[in-house]
Amino acid sequence: MNKSKIGIIGLGTVGSGVFKTLKSFPEIEIVKIAVNNINKPRNIEGLDKALLTDNAQEIVTNPDIDIVVEVMGGVNPAFDLIKTALENGKHIVTANKEILAKHGQELFSLAEKHNKVILYEAAIAGGIPLIMPIKTILAGNRITKINAILNGTTNYILTKMDTDGVSYEDVLKEAQELGYAETDPTGDVEGFDAAYKITTLATIAFGKRVKYENVYREGITKIRKEDMAKANELGYKIKLIASAKIDENNNADVRVHPMLVLKNASLAHINYVTNAVEITGNPVGTVVLSGAGAGEFPTASSVVGDILAINSEIDKNSSILPMMHCKHDLDATPVNIDDTFNKYYISITAPNAIGVIAMIGTICANKNISLSSILQKEVFENKTADITVITERCQEKLIKEVVEELKDCTVNSIIRVAD
Amino acid sequence: MNKSKIGIIGLGTVGSGVFKTLKSFPEIEIVKIAVNNINKPRNIEGLDKALLTDNAQEIVTNPDIDIVVEVMGGVNPAFDLIKTALENGKHIVTANKEILAKHGQELFSLAEKHNKVILYEAAIAGGIPLIMPIKTILAGNRITKINAILNGTTNYILTKMDTDGVSYEDVLKEAQELGYAETDPTGDVEGFDAAYKITTLATIAFGKRVKYENVYREGITKIRKEDMAKANELGYKIKLIASAKIDENNNADVRVHPMLVLKNASLAHINYVTNAVEITGNPVGTVVLSGAGAGEFPTASSVVGDILAINSEIDKNSSILPMMHCKHDLDATPVNIDDTFNKYYISITAPNAIGVIAMIGTICANKNISLSSILQKEVFENKTADITVITERCQEKLIKEVVEELKDCTVNSIIRVAD
Repeated sequence: MNKSKIGIIGLGTVGSGVFKTLKSFPEIEIVKIAVNNINKPRNIEGLDKALLTDNAQEIVTNPDIDIVVEVMGGVNPAFDLIKTALENGKHIVTANKEILAKHGQELFSLAEKHNKVILYEAAIAGGIPLIMPIKTILAGNRITKINAILNGTTNYILTKMDTDGVSYEDVLKEAQELGYAETDPTGDVEGFDAAYKITTLATIAFGKRVKYENVYREGITKIRKEDMAKANELGYKIKLIASAKIDENNNADVRVHPMLVLKNASLAHINYVTNAVEITGNPVGTVVLSGAGAGEFPTASSVVGDILAINSEIDKNSSILPMMHCKHDLDATPVNIDDTFNKYYISITAPNAIGVIAMIGTICANKNISLSSILQKEVFENKTADITVITERCQEKLIKEVVEELKDCTVNSIIRVAD
Repeated sequence: MNKSKIGIIGLGTVGSGVFKTLKSFPEIEIVKIAVNNINKPRNIEGLDKALLTDNAQEIVTNPDIDIVVEVMGGVNPAFDLIKTALENGKHIVTANKEILAKHGQELFSLAEKHNKVILYEAAIAGGIPLIMPIKTILAGNRITKINAILNGTTNYILTKMDTDGVSYEDVLKEAQELGYAETDPTGDVEGFDAAYKITTLATIAFGKRVKYENVYREGITKIRKEDMAKANELGYKIKLIASAKIDENNNADVRVHPMLVLKNASLAHINYVTNAVEITGNPVGTVVLSGAGAGEFPTASSVVGDILAINSEIDKNSSILPMMHCKHDLDATPVNIDDTFNKYYISITAPNAIGVIAMIGTICANKNISLSSILQKEVFENKTADITVITERCQEKLIKEVVEELKDCTVNSIIRVAD
């Protein structure tokens, strides 16, 4: 049996889960763990304080260590540490979605140069088996489309808004109290976290480099409880969807934004902090993989899976894990969101009910936009009309023109609708 | 790049899909394809008739061939062909669930003896990535529970019975006309197909040999449209569930039978021919993998994935694919269905309504069985009472005693209920 020596950088939630899980694997020896503060009290059974160091350089340059497990998060100093580790001949296992999205190309090139691998199953969807299946058993496929729920915090908030009929602000507060949302929730609720993840996932699935700066991103902070109610009435749920599509000419449309999804769609049933990834390819068709997208133990499952995969091949006289290699040299061509075609949910408040449907209908018809659903309710107190429409597929820039022409009305929300 | 030479045995639905998919992979050369009848007209683009043979021995003994792809199905002659191929130093990729369930141990031992691998992703759940993820990225887990929908034909029939409110017989006829069910549907509707699959899946997931003859099996032919309606009323769907549980003492409870599953459970949303596998392990928690469980192209995806995996490692000077190795020497201890604990849905027709609930309640109470739901409807025409109960968890043998004591009533259906 191979026996690998590893160093772990970071002993927060994920690092603790990895430490506890690795106790059952005598073939993996933990040589060193880098932490910020050696003297911080930690309630981790079996943790020998002699393993700890506050100098991560001791890990990335340690000649005894075969695999560096980076679970500290953030770009700095993780980026430099991973580079140093690769230069010192270590394999890397990381859960760092931000670093992969922003600096993946440089890191994978450096790994290739040193004939080492970087595995990162835990960085995209926690415990869900995703990257390794794509690189191995799905390797015979041309993957063309991904629709995914990749952020547990926002899915929790949207699920609670839906089931309890409460506002975004109220649920966020509760989620913060429960520890599901951070004090500064921006990274989650504005879609950054999901955007990091879909950047790398699309790159791997398409075999073309998708650049983070080309990923369109919109968060969930503007979703109103009224939108949730209307979506339900029309047969939909609202989810924060990370999506990626690539066409035969290598144009990649990659984005994160809220979407209305039909109630009978797979992703509509993914609730609270669960994540799910729907992958469409040829010949497999569509597969859906779901599970816990975060958390101490689910994430540890993926980190440990990656460690064991490297360990199983570490002594071979050949480049290891050939199927896991990340091809990324050819860039995908980005698609501007204004050029994309979507269906749209539009919620409008009109000053009065008379002729307003005719007006909206005319504005849309002039741009060749068809309406598939219309819901009008008169608000008696102030004589305004509350109108909800769902359009057929049309170009995003035309919808922006429609909104401008609706200057006499208040446009409350525009949310894209999944096909 | 490695270049493997393969021989394919069988050119039916799966074989054709494999042939068509492999056209995009120049690293895989198809040397020979064995068929029953060389002269049968086949509409397969690019198929050179010179590739065909009606003598499969030419493939399994051919010194040029590295990998034998067995997609003919059935035990004979596939079993002997695979053994001969292994003895002649070929790796095996197979979609043959029956052979793995009945003779897996012998085949895996023979493969190990000859330092070859048998991969079989397509045998369990068509295109769904399942076996390779369990053996690789989930390798850090102790898997303890599987609940799955592994047969598309029966799931189609149950879905149609549910949505259209029609009888088993009527849907079966329609499914046969559409080609979703075979002329003799026994293998599907009596649960044999699902039992083959869960035998191998449980063996792999638990790392203990589960024997096919110990798998409890019950089909869907006795499910009435009235049961579907009642289940719906009580908040459930009825699905044919293949399940497997193992405890710390190595007792494996593996079965295939219909079950009521709560409408908000993952498997309740898996409809028509889609398959799904819910895997629970530590540390990952629960993941659900779903997709097409059969069909030309989904199945080809898994067969080709296995071929590419072997190809990527075929020239290495070490035992290949170490993580894929099938540990199977230690048998799991079977659990008798009479000893298991379940909830039960029981549909009863009583000769008259007076005192019948009290009688049922007393019979159950005497055996310490609690009832969680009771639904009674008087049938006015013939003065009988139509009663549906759902019990709390209790031992199967006690439920059999309850049924015997209900001798004055007609017990229409007993269906187990998922926790």
